[in-house]
Amino acid sequence: MAVETFSVAEICAEAKRASHALARLDSAAKDAALLAMADALEERAGEVLEANARDLEAGAEGGLGEALLDRLALTPTRLAGMAVDVRRIAALPDPVGEGIEARRLPNGLDLRKVRVPLGVVAVVYEARPNVTIDCSALCLKSGNAIVLRGSSIAGHSNAVLAAVAAEAVAAAGLPEGSISLVAGGGHEELAELATHSESVDLIIPRGGEGLKAALSAVATVPVIYAAAGNCHVYVDASADLEAARAIVLNAKLQRPGTCNSAETLLVHRDAAPDFLPRVLADLHDAGVELRVDGRARALAGSVADSLLDATEDDFATEFLALVLAVGVVDSTEEAIEHVNRYGSGHSEAIVTSSVEASRAFTGGVDAACVYVNASTRFTDGGEFGLGAEIGNSTQKLHARGPIGLRELCTFKYVVEGAGHTRA
Amino acid sequence: MAVETFSVAEICAEAKRASHALARLDSAAKDAALLAMADALEERAGEVLEANARDLEAGAEGGLGEALLDRLALTPTRLAGMAVDVRRIAALPDPVGEGIEARRLPNGLDLRKVRVPLGVVAVVYEARPNVTIDCSALCLKSGNAIVLRGSSIAGHSNAVLAAVAAEAVAAAGLPEGSISLVAGGGHEELAELATHSESVDLIIPRGGEGLKAALSAVATVPVIYAAAGNCHVYVDASADLEAARAIVLNAKLQRPGTCNSAETLLVHRDAAPDFLPRVLADLHDAGVELRVDGRARALAGSVADSLLDATEDDFATEFLALVLAVGVVDSTEEAIEHVNRYGSGHSEAIVTSSVEASRAFTGGVDAACVYVNASTRFTDGGEFGLGAEIGNSTQKLHARGPIGLRELCTFKYVVEGAGHTRA
Repeated sequence: MAVETFSVAEICAEAKRASHALARLDSAAKDAALLAMADALEERAGEVLEANARDLEAGAEGGLGEALLDRLALTPTRLAGMAVDVRRIAALPDPVGEGIEARRLPNGLDLRKVRVPLGVVAVVYEARPNVTIDCSALCLKSGNAIVLRGSSIAGHSNAVLAAVAAEAVAAAGLPEGSISLVAGGGHEELAELATHSESVDLIIPRGGEGLKAALSAVATVPVIYAAAGNCHVYVDASADLEAARAIVLNAKLQRPGTCNSAETLLVHRDAAPDFLPRVLADLHDAGVELRVDGRARALAGSVADSLLDATEDDFATEFLALVLAVGVVDSTEEAIEHVNRYGSGHSEAIVTSSVEASRAFTGGVDAACVYVNASTRFTDGGEFGLGAEIGNSTQKLHARGPIGLRELCTFKYVVEGAGHTRA
Repeated sequence: MAVETFSVAEICAEAKRASHALARLDSAAKDAALLAMADALEERAGEVLEANARDLEAGAEGGLGEALLDRLALTPTRLAGMAVDVRRIAALPDPVGEGIEARRLPNGLDLRKVRVPLGVVAVVYEARPNVTIDCSALCLKSGNAIVLRGSSIAGHSNAVLAAVAAEAVAAAGLPEGSISLVAGGGHEELAELATHSESVDLIIPRGGEGLKAALSAVATVPVIYAAAGNCHVYVDASADLEAARAIVLNAKLQRPGTCNSAETLLVHRDAAPDFLPRVLADLHDAGVELRVDGRARALAGSVADSLLDATEDDFATEFLALVLAVGVVDSTEEAIEHVNRYGSGHSEAIVTSSVEASRAFTGGVDAACVYVNASTRFTDGGEFGLGAEIGNSTQKLHARGPIGLRELCTFKYVVEGAGHTRA
């Protein structure tokens, strides 16, 4: 693999050429290439682990923290898991060619709206080298060429992983340029990639807020940003309080570092006297730091002494940690207003037995996913039956919620006539 | 109407508040407001025409050309036409609430993907004052609040039209802020509007390339650009040459200033000797300036002397005029490559009797609309049965092809459970 000797412009141009061939491949050809990629990951595990060891050594010397080193580390088990994931993606239904609608127009023209690949997808990512394989598999499955730009911290790992993947799919008959890796993890390459709108159809950042900010400052190519999630659970006056307790604990505790975890609990004033003392005690016992408004504090019961006062900022913050803001509201309408004001449009839940409250909340809350009597933690491509996801979007255009294979596609209208001309 | 005394920030914030109420309105309430808007346009025609006369006078004094003055001018007939269009939009199906998909997940959660309004749509436009009404009706019908920013040339007309529309829909019960007009047509207001991402969900420019460039330089809000169309007709070896002739003439001549008109004719070498002399003569007789490659010139017959040589630039140009580039190709594959290289991804046609060629062209051409045996001129929201359109998109994300009411919407997932928590 000599891709690293090419410029960003050359890589993008070759990816564009590849994308035209990829768009016309049938599912069997793409799936065979993905299975070859999975096999190659297993067969060439030694090379990958060796490269990874070099990155880990350099990282340790360079003073990378434990958590980052763990994200960077590959093991035989992790590699085997990556191969399993690629085979799982190969087994998913092909989104390309799916008919979205089909109509005969009054003039006899047959119009079909058909799902087709976007073309070239660029993925910009940070330490985790598994993104190299995961995103390559998702893009190829959806008929797109992929241009990867990883972090220099994982430079050796990414280079070998991209080479293993690119060589395997090329040997399986996919066009050269289907998978490319941009050499160099600097801001210059990022800027060049993000402004290459003649070749790159979409750029997806996989990383922290710094990466997103760097990208949004320069991008002219369309970007889908993975979402921050300031998610709420609202316990209505009519809620089944046992269900509410289970949902609140699940939404906060099951995996607090994820974007679909709850960051604020809102409780209707009629439910609060019964509900708050119990749930706050449970949350406190589970190690959650509670930041409450004055009305919640007055009803807090046994844990009142351990509570902090919630500031306006607390209600606007995605903690991604064992911290929860808590407030009492007078009505479902007030809960909806609070959610629309402070939420990030990710995942919002109401717990209620009232059809009216459910209807008001699902209609009034402006978010990608609105739950009734279920935890916000279900917002996930796998849980939603999309098979896999490349992230979650809180944007309103194109992709909202989990970004799966369909969201890596666009569509075209195919219109067939019999010599039709416009009058 | 006092909106003109508010800042862009205040206008956007009020539009956001209005959008939350608009999103929950039923179709009957929105349609009644649109009918009230249409009635008000007729009832207050005098005020509108008076304001328009002031703009026309200032325009004439300021040295506006004939064409611009005509675009600016309102007449009783044009106003009546605008009212008719609003009533037509009111009669269209409501896109809001439409179920896109619904599934029960394996864990019993009921998931629905439902179409909902985007929220606040900003429309930035040039001289035509009818855009004020047209876009307001489309946005309200799709449950969005609209913020308008017109050109200062049409300042008086737009102010009265926006006031008439806003007052009529407010009297019909729609929230304040459903329709607003930003005072001042300067670049400062444009930049402020285009970066107000906390309130504005989408910005649509309706105007020339200068406006688009000004917007793309500053926008952080998502933008959908109306498309340039460098459209092709490809006449395959197996084409019915009578049908091909009718399609080429229609695609070039029916309305040459539109983005879905043909700018390049490609002819397969086997069809060229029969087809080119006749069609070039027809086009020449119709006043079309022909810019041809060497192989086309050699087969041109009677009109050979009147032909210009096509440059590389000619094949890349959207003429929007009675000019056509003409080339001969060796194969359908070469035609596809030409189209993908020079086309703008708008509307592309093949004329053929071959199933193989049709399949190759519709599969291989990367464009919003691909036609088989039909004129490119059909790319239009009305023709496609969308009822109305706000423009045509050659972007691949969100909206591709005609931008109708559905494309002014996003969706949300509504997920209902019975106390579901994630394991």
